[in-house]
Amino acid sequence: MSKRKAFLPDWTEKIAPPDSWRSVFKWGAPDGFKHPSAHWYAMMKEEFGLSDADFSRKIREGLEPVVAPSKPALAKKHLDKLKELAGPESVSTDDYSRVKFSYGMTVDEALELRAQSPKTVADAVVHPRNKDDVQKIVAYCAAEKIPLYTYGAGSSVNYGVRTEKGGISLALGTHMNKVLSVNEQNQTAQVQPGMLGPAYEATLNDAPRFFSVKKRYTCGHFPQSFEFSSVGGWVAALGSGQASTYYGDACDILLSLEVVTPAGTIRTLSYPGTATGPKITDMFKGSEGAFGVITELTMKIFRYMPENRRYFGYMFPSWGAAVDCAREMVQGEFGLPAVFRISDAEETDRGLKLYGIPSVVDAGLIRMGHIPGKRCLCLGTCEGDEDYTALVSAKIKKLAKKNGATSLSGYASRKWEKTRFTEPYMREDLNDYGLIIDTLETGVTWDNIHRLHQGVRKVVKARPRTMCMTHASHFYPQGTNLYFIFMIRPENEAEYKDFQLRIVDAIVQNGGSISHHHGVGKMLAPWMETHLGTAQMDVLRALKKHFDPDNIMNPGGQMGLDLEPGRRRK
Amino acid sequence: MSKRKAFLPDWTEKIAPPDSWRSVFKWGAPDGFKHPSAHWYAMMKEEFGLSDADFSRKIREGLEPVVAPSKPALAKKHLDKLKELAGPESVSTDDYSRVKFSYGMTVDEALELRAQSPKTVADAVVHPRNKDDVQKIVAYCAAEKIPLYTYGAGSSVNYGVRTEKGGISLALGTHMNKVLSVNEQNQTAQVQPGMLGPAYEATLNDAPRFFSVKKRYTCGHFPQSFEFSSVGGWVAALGSGQASTYYGDACDILLSLEVVTPAGTIRTLSYPGTATGPKITDMFKGSEGAFGVITELTMKIFRYMPENRRYFGYMFPSWGAAVDCAREMVQGEFGLPAVFRISDAEETDRGLKLYGIPSVVDAGLIRMGHIPGKRCLCLGTCEGDEDYTALVSAKIKKLAKKNGATSLSGYASRKWEKTRFTEPYMREDLNDYGLIIDTLETGVTWDNIHRLHQGVRKVVKARPRTMCMTHASHFYPQGTNLYFIFMIRPENEAEYKDFQLRIVDAIVQNGGSISHHHGVGKMLAPWMETHLGTAQMDVLRALKKHFDPDNIMNPGGQMGLDLEPGRRRK
Repeated sequence: MSKRKAFLPDWTEKIAPPDSWRSVFKWGAPDGFKHPSAHWYAMMKEEFGLSDADFSRKIREGLEPVVAPSKPALAKKHLDKLKELAGPESVSTDDYSRVKFSYGMTVDEALELRAQSPKTVADAVVHPRNKDDVQKIVAYCAAEKIPLYTYGAGSSVNYGVRTEKGGISLALGTHMNKVLSVNEQNQTAQVQPGMLGPAYEATLNDAPRFFSVKKRYTCGHFPQSFEFSSVGGWVAALGSGQASTYYGDACDILLSLEVVTPAGTIRTLSYPGTATGPKITDMFKGSEGAFGVITELTMKIFRYMPENRRYFGYMFPSWGAAVDCAREMVQGEFGLPAVFRISDAEETDRGLKLYGIPSVVDAGLIRMGHIPGKRCLCLGTCEGDEDYTALVSAKIKKLAKKNGATSLSGYASRKWEKTRFTEPYMREDLNDYGLIIDTLETGVTWDNIHRLHQGVRKVVKARPRTMCMTHASHFYPQGTNLYFIFMIRPENEAEYKDFQLRIVDAIVQNGGSISHHHGVGKMLAPWMETHLGTAQMDVLRALKKHFDPDNIMNPGGQMGLDLEPGRRRK
Repeated sequence: MSKRKAFLPDWTEKIAPPDSWRSVFKWGAPDGFKHPSAHWYAMMKEEFGLSDADFSRKIREGLEPVVAPSKPALAKKHLDKLKELAGPESVSTDDYSRVKFSYGMTVDEALELRAQSPKTVADAVVHPRNKDDVQKIVAYCAAEKIPLYTYGAGSSVNYGVRTEKGGISLALGTHMNKVLSVNEQNQTAQVQPGMLGPAYEATLNDAPRFFSVKKRYTCGHFPQSFEFSSVGGWVAALGSGQASTYYGDACDILLSLEVVTPAGTIRTLSYPGTATGPKITDMFKGSEGAFGVITELTMKIFRYMPENRRYFGYMFPSWGAAVDCAREMVQGEFGLPAVFRISDAEETDRGLKLYGIPSVVDAGLIRMGHIPGKRCLCLGTCEGDEDYTALVSAKIKKLAKKNGATSLSGYASRKWEKTRFTEPYMREDLNDYGLIIDTLETGVTWDNIHRLHQGVRKVVKARPRTMCMTHASHFYPQGTNLYFIFMIRPENEAEYKDFQLRIVDAIVQNGGSISHHHGVGKMLAPWMETHLGTAQMDVLRALKKHFDPDNIMNPGGQMGLDLEPGRRRK
């Protein structure tokens, strides 16, 4: 008698047609997929009260060809002029380009595209060949008051690249995507803004082949979006890499840059230390395309020494113990780990389920006091000099033990590292069946981490049938971040949107920052005035006014700079 | 037969009268003195072609009572109002206060005061009791367009506190000089701007006594001016401490602040990591009193673990070897030393002479290839966790050896540490006999350090009878600083001034920044436009315009913001 095979949804492995909606909103490589495991599928059905029947039919896959909602509104004379400035082949006005380069990776954006109803698209996409082109385009758009949006790689999850007012989307990745030089003495790389993470990292790893240098280097910046985000975007949106505790955030690894603004081109000073007034470089960190277009970056780079990397993993008896250990570690002055992640109890248990933990191991953990619903997983790596990574990992081991943890060896960390960039691929599978997975994240000081964690979870878990997984993954002596991952099956989009708003409210009301490393974009803009206060917003608006007096750079709410007061969230 | 005792000048050990000019311009504690050694005295005579007779009579000691050059120009109604706002005892209009709180420690300023001809003094000094007072005073001065200068502790060496346009000098050190709280979880201290280094450090070292905390802390910031500079000044002028390689510069150890500007009061966000647009905190780092008055700072603090400190010293065969070692060290990713100083050949030889090196040791060094005129001294310490300092010092030892150095043990570093804050005291002794000692310093990337060092020395040494000692003492993976100490016996003040200008010219022309950690003030302002370029200066001016539309905050050239174009230096 043959055993009946358990039902599993038909998770897509089809490459979306290259002209389709799906090809725009799908995360990552067209042929890249990552599906929920059988365990997760079972868990989702249970959590959301679903049956196999709910997974029998995909909804709104978006396989149809993209159609723009309207013809370009930009006058032909402008298009002709742009072609004259940047070359005829650099200006695209086809529907597909206009939609593609107007959309990021915000969940709401994916839903819009699945519904085949994009709200706003650029009139034209311009692919500048070099920084001279950018200068000409910015000057022209400024003179003609044409809205100009900067598109690095489109990985924004908060409407950061949304072409709210139409106009031009400037696609920097098409041509401006190279490392121009590596300076071995200064340990810097001069890089163009549209270069994606893997190409940048590969070039640095292999620097002796491409440049007259002796050593291999690493960029040190590995955000979740690494494969599909650009160096310029890292800096413009204040990203953090997964190894930021060691290498620093994007704001720390930028040395200087060149920016083209409507008020002119600025190349900032390139000194590691200087006392010549407030640093102009800093003012473009997090400027999110609202001040100008970054055309060149001088990035700090680091020795590439993967042979020295050490992996570790621990199970803590509680979130409190994991947090205490993390704080003691980052304040311990013995050096810092590269990757360090602590998952709260819900993320830990669901993670174990997702990846499958052998039941004998689980039983052992439980015997050691690591109880489901309480225990918290920690993964990490150390990088740097060989003796340094030995010291730091030994110190962490000691601190973990002191805080009641059990070592899991480096197995889980190695496994995590191999698949660390693939998580976002699961979104499409879930969306195909009406489920939503989304993330919100926040910066926090140590003295507020528990209030914030509990305050946000309280709001989230008040909604029935809602998963909420949280981790902290970027550590500083003064605090960390909290990264919330939600899964729901909303009644409808409005209910989902309302839920999202209430979570951001809860973050702000519980003292978190409205973003730790996703940036603000147009989605989080409504909270900016309350969060920063009008006095600080006025400073940003003063800079905006200086660089871009006619508000042509990323207009329509970016960072709350030109948000109508009525849209502010208290 | 008694041996005739060698002549030594009568270096002053007299405490200057408390109302005297000298009490204003003298560095440090009234009863603090440090005199040139007999070796140095001999060396100076030889270098400058002088005899004992030239040291027989002190010139312009400034022991007479201070007399202000004019009566206060500020109307009585303003003075009455300020007394009403900040309390009657908080407003001083006596000559001594007006001069004292209008002067910093610039060499030129000392000469002015010795000549008893102060060029500009404040009309009144106000000593705010708290930040509410500051708010009221700033608002009043803004409304009445009264120039307002912020005086932290007056250690500026570039006319940073100079009351160029008269008006009010705001003395923050009188009352606003306390640690308000220590947050043990976040490792932060909330401190008022006018607190001096030693009181701040002592409070943190002894934190368990003053606050409900368990651990002892250190501020991590020990500039040469430590004893007579203020926490607010460190941030406002972008200072660097002697242990900055480990702890970071002032800009790195500030978490957030409160500033009172004519446009209103701003309290910046206090997250260690956040992605909510360009950080307003950054815009006040280095603002030098031109945007507003810093009224509170939240500083990062560090564990105080002096028991783990390790001391080292090396002699390198050459400047090139010392620089190579420093670069390899700071790029080596094994951790960082706290103090690290490398002296060029001239500083090394003169330093050995100043402090006296036993001839047997000297002979030994020479035998090992450390030749006078080439050899370079390195001093340093490691701080942090016990095993970390062991690792870092062992790694440095290995690198030093690789670069041809000979270990000198920790003796010289310990000796240096004991007297490290007393060097500036020597200035008065020299000035008393018409000699000038002054410093200029610059930030530099590794690939330009030799060109800059040689370029500046070429200009300096072209002047006959001129000493020039150089060291690097703040290290980053991307570069370091160069600190030039000059000694001359100028023909007259004009000749000295011209010499100083030519050195700054040489710094700029050879690619150094115009200041690494002294700030800009009004003295280096003429180079700002060339150095930063007009596009960057326009950004600073836009912020200035926003915070201080009527230019009442530190007007008269500070940072070159309102410098007449004719005074710019190409």
